[in-house]
Amino acid sequence: MGALHSNDLTVFFLGLAALLGAAHVLGAAARRLGQPPVIGEIVAGLLLGPTVLGSLAPGFQAWLFPRDGPAAVALNAVVALAVALLLAVAGMRVNLSAVWRQGWASLAVALAGLLVPLLIGGLLAWLMPGWWGIPLQGMPNLFAVFFGTALAVSALPVIAKVLLDLDLFRTDFGMLVLVAATVNNLLAWLIFSVVLGGRAGGHSITYTAALTVGFVALTLTLGRWAADRAMPWVQAHLAWPGGILGFLVLTSLVGAATTEAIGVHAIFGAFLVGIALGDSHHLREHTRHIVHEFVEGVLAPVFVAAIGLEVNFVTNFHPWLVLRILVLGTAVKVLGCGLAARLVGTRSAEAWAVGWAMNARGELGIVLGLLAWQAGVIHEQLFVALVTLAVVTSALAGPVLKRLLRREQAWSLASLLDGRLCLIDLAASDSPEAIRRLSAVAAERATLSPEWVAEAVLRRETAMGTGIGHGVAVPHARLVNLKAPLVVAGLSRQGLGFDAPDAEPVRLVFLVLTPQDDAGAQVQILASIARLVRDPQVRREALSARTPTALLAALRIADTLQRSSLAEEAATGVGDDRGR
Amino acid sequence: MGALHSNDLTVFFLGLAALLGAAHVLGAAARRLGQPPVIGEIVAGLLLGPTVLGSLAPGFQAWLFPRDGPAAVALNAVVALAVALLLAVAGMRVNLSAVWRQGWASLAVALAGLLVPLLIGGLLAWLMPGWWGIPLQGMPNLFAVFFGTALAVSALPVIAKVLLDLDLFRTDFGMLVLVAATVNNLLAWLIFSVVLGGRAGGHSITYTAALTVGFVALTLTLGRWAADRAMPWVQAHLAWPGGILGFLVLTSLVGAATTEAIGVHAIFGAFLVGIALGDSHHLREHTRHIVHEFVEGVLAPVFVAAIGLEVNFVTNFHPWLVLRILVLGTAVKVLGCGLAARLVGTRSAEAWAVGWAMNARGELGIVLGLLAWQAGVIHEQLFVALVTLAVVTSALAGPVLKRLLRREQAWSLASLLDGRLCLIDLAASDSPEAIRRLSAVAAERATLSPEWVAEAVLRRETAMGTGIGHGVAVPHARLVNLKAPLVVAGLSRQGLGFDAPDAEPVRLVFLVLTPQDDAGAQVQILASIARLVRDPQVRREALSARTPTALLAALRIADTLQRSSLAEEAATGVGDDRGR
Repeated sequence: MGALHSNDLTVFFLGLAALLGAAHVLGAAARRLGQPPVIGEIVAGLLLGPTVLGSLAPGFQAWLFPRDGPAAVALNAVVALAVALLLAVAGMRVNLSAVWRQGWASLAVALAGLLVPLLIGGLLAWLMPGWWGIPLQGMPNLFAVFFGTALAVSALPVIAKVLLDLDLFRTDFGMLVLVAATVNNLLAWLIFSVVLGGRAGGHSITYTAALTVGFVALTLTLGRWAADRAMPWVQAHLAWPGGILGFLVLTSLVGAATTEAIGVHAIFGAFLVGIALGDSHHLREHTRHIVHEFVEGVLAPVFVAAIGLEVNFVTNFHPWLVLRILVLGTAVKVLGCGLAARLVGTRSAEAWAVGWAMNARGELGIVLGLLAWQAGVIHEQLFVALVTLAVVTSALAGPVLKRLLRREQAWSLASLLDGRLCLIDLAASDSPEAIRRLSAVAAERATLSPEWVAEAVLRRETAMGTGIGHGVAVPHARLVNLKAPLVVAGLSRQGLGFDAPDAEPVRLVFLVLTPQDDAGAQVQILASIARLVRDPQVRREALSARTPTALLAALRIADTLQRSSLAEEAATGVGDDRGR
Repeated sequence: MGALHSNDLTVFFLGLAALLGAAHVLGAAARRLGQPPVIGEIVAGLLLGPTVLGSLAPGFQAWLFPRDGPAAVALNAVVALAVALLLAVAGMRVNLSAVWRQGWASLAVALAGLLVPLLIGGLLAWLMPGWWGIPLQGMPNLFAVFFGTALAVSALPVIAKVLLDLDLFRTDFGMLVLVAATVNNLLAWLIFSVVLGGRAGGHSITYTAALTVGFVALTLTLGRWAADRAMPWVQAHLAWPGGILGFLVLTSLVGAATTEAIGVHAIFGAFLVGIALGDSHHLREHTRHIVHEFVEGVLAPVFVAAIGLEVNFVTNFHPWLVLRILVLGTAVKVLGCGLAARLVGTRSAEAWAVGWAMNARGELGIVLGLLAWQAGVIHEQLFVALVTLAVVTSALAGPVLKRLLRREQAWSLASLLDGRLCLIDLAASDSPEAIRRLSAVAAERATLSPEWVAEAVLRRETAMGTGIGHGVAVPHARLVNLKAPLVVAGLSRQGLGFDAPDAEPVRLVFLVLTPQDDAGAQVQILASIARLVRDPQVRREALSARTPTALLAALRIADTLQRSSLAEEAATGVGDDRGR
């Protein structure tokens, strides 16, 4: 009957819940350490998979994540759906119009970033396959092409995130990298799909390639036109926003099913349909937002963590193989893209930065490795090495770019605050007392003398009151022996006088301390606080917090919302004439 | 290996896409006909299931929706997930605090609405089981209790929707019904779960009941407290909003798995956890919104349509059985709740309206029937009859309430406009010409004389210009021989003078015609247009429309957004001290 019985359902739900919880918690932990969340999500999978749980409690692991039977199929179905929708969302982020406007520079970088890894990687794989893990069924040509593609892929989502964090999204550099990554994605997936599909479907590569190229051409012309025409109809006649959400999911599924049917993997179709859909200016920001949050927030972590269930990452971790792959993968990509960027006239530091940005492989590198492994093209050890390559290159991109371009990460309130730096009951009867209390907390954190900190802040405060209106004050000081910026937030129940322009009693106080020699940090932080508290809802939520965690949550959420709306503005500005 | 092979994946994706598309399109068609969407969604299932497609093209139907194998399991897994999340969302809508404040009147209605159907239905089933379809394995007691419960359930979501449509949400009447439906839901599911669980788990009913009551008590006290404490932590420390979305899904799944493990159906646990989660004032409106839209917009229609795949609704449609169930189901519910409402002092028409509102069974009635059928407690024919009962009672609730309470549905621009009433290029050089063109369109729709309509509008226009500022004008008239309100929207590319207070040229014109004797309609419609165009984004989107459908979509979306924010305000006002 294809039914899930009671025990299957229990196992399915619990397994899904375990993946979801572990992926979110460890993803957040990775971010706290300044790493991309994907690293924590991979670790979550390792913990729940054969690597850790399977070694410690094999019986329990096999019960929670059976490899056979209805519960296993159910979990795999959800993961398959998650990957298809994840790729559709990745496709929606692709901005085709920008490619045309950007012109040759991006195209050169994209092609170099594709062809150099493909040719060098492919050649090395063909000459000495044993070095890179044994091709399972002796298919040297197939293996060589696949291997080259695996080295050649760039991860659009990870790159976009890194650019945003370093405030590079709107720059020429950012646009060059984004467009190059877009073109790279499209071509790399095309090659990979045709190669893998040709094999799996039993058709000749020529036949599969013709079908695939036809599908691509059709989707990006007729499909794109039809999606653009259909969307106003859907929004006018079906329930909103349920109808348009359903339409996005439906078309992605049909695209996925079509490519799967012509023998190319489902996710390629979902990705292409995503591009066609995302290009329509009828797709509203509100709808994108719901889809992105649900797919990237809930489904993507499940997929990444599920990778860890596949193999034992410890027994299959072959250090020399991993090292070889890391060195080769990084070398071909950084050199290929970097040299191309130099050739089209980018100056040296920026050109190498382009290379390191394109080197990030993120989730897409993992998906590609997984598919090849499932298709039997590569060995478990190479799969593990490719996952490591994806994770390490993604983790490297941010720090290397920061160094090469001498960029500082934009300070945000969200990253500076934590629960112990939030005081929800600032028992103080006047502003000097409030400043002393906040300074004591800051001084403890920075191991400075509390009196000395308070004095510096009070000196500044006496010069001119730091009330900024709406019941908010931002006492601040620059201190010689402070290493990094520090913010302490405090709520006063009774209201304090901070000499505010509107004479309103101050109930929300942010103490902002920055290093003496970092003039930018102070300005940035004060500006971000001012922007944040301009929104009355933010002030209301902060003031209603009853615990430090609630105050922290209110401020972090507000910060995220404002940053994402800034990012969207940036995307729209950079983008094109999309009428969002 | 529990893997989905290429063909399974294609079938799974296509089946899901077919259900999604058919459910959305037919759901919208039902709404267009003034019916709840659930009716269209059921029909979508009938078309794709054995009833229609299975009769016309049995081979294709069996290919697209196999009853065995991985693709069947995959689809069932998604449907199971959809039901669990749907019930969790239904639980989040439950407002426990309101129950305490509402007091005895609601409790009396809830208990009468539960006990009268349960006792009368149960007794009739026990006395003459043959009348109601044969209990499959001869379990008269179990069958009797189940049958009573099936008649006793009320659908909170459908009822809330009907109250919103009739603008009754904020009234004492609305609160009485909502709270009664809440209590009814909780108790009916409790009884049903214990009865079904006791049987399925092989435990004694006492044992299952003890476990279930323990679980309920624990979830609604400790679980509720823990959820309220955990949410600020999740929002402060995990990615936002991904983290909190994941948390909601995760806890619902754990709740579902727990009840499934104690032998009570999964959805009961998801429902309870939903109640515990929804009661926290830390759950932000933004997060609720994403979950509701995705679950109710995308997953719920799939579930409802999937019902139609289960059985052949034509061959199993036993008219006499359906009629008996309809009469009995409606009688016990309307009488039970209506009399209870009378007894606690509600006046006559309102008391019967309470009964008819509580009579709506919606999706919850369908879920209950499905579970009982899958557990082998009832026959296919009775399942079909119960689905019919759920659909018919839901369809009846709105019209009957409207009549009993003499309520008119609030006119909304969205329901009055259609594509042919939107002109995107109002070629007119001055306001009289524009009015004549719009009047011609209106006159054709209402089969009136164009000159006569235009003259009435122009007469009103001459008395005083109808420009309302921001480039919008609302020429209007009340006409003796017009049956129902009529609105025509037009965009002028060049801008017209309508004597607007801000002297801005008018580019967006709404011609509003209402029947002479319906003074309320004109005021309502003009007010709703004024509210709509106050938002600059709405004006911008309307003005950038290039096709009538795009203009219609822009206006309908704006209308939906404004209505839902009004509804949320209403819910908050009625609700309690939740800090949304």
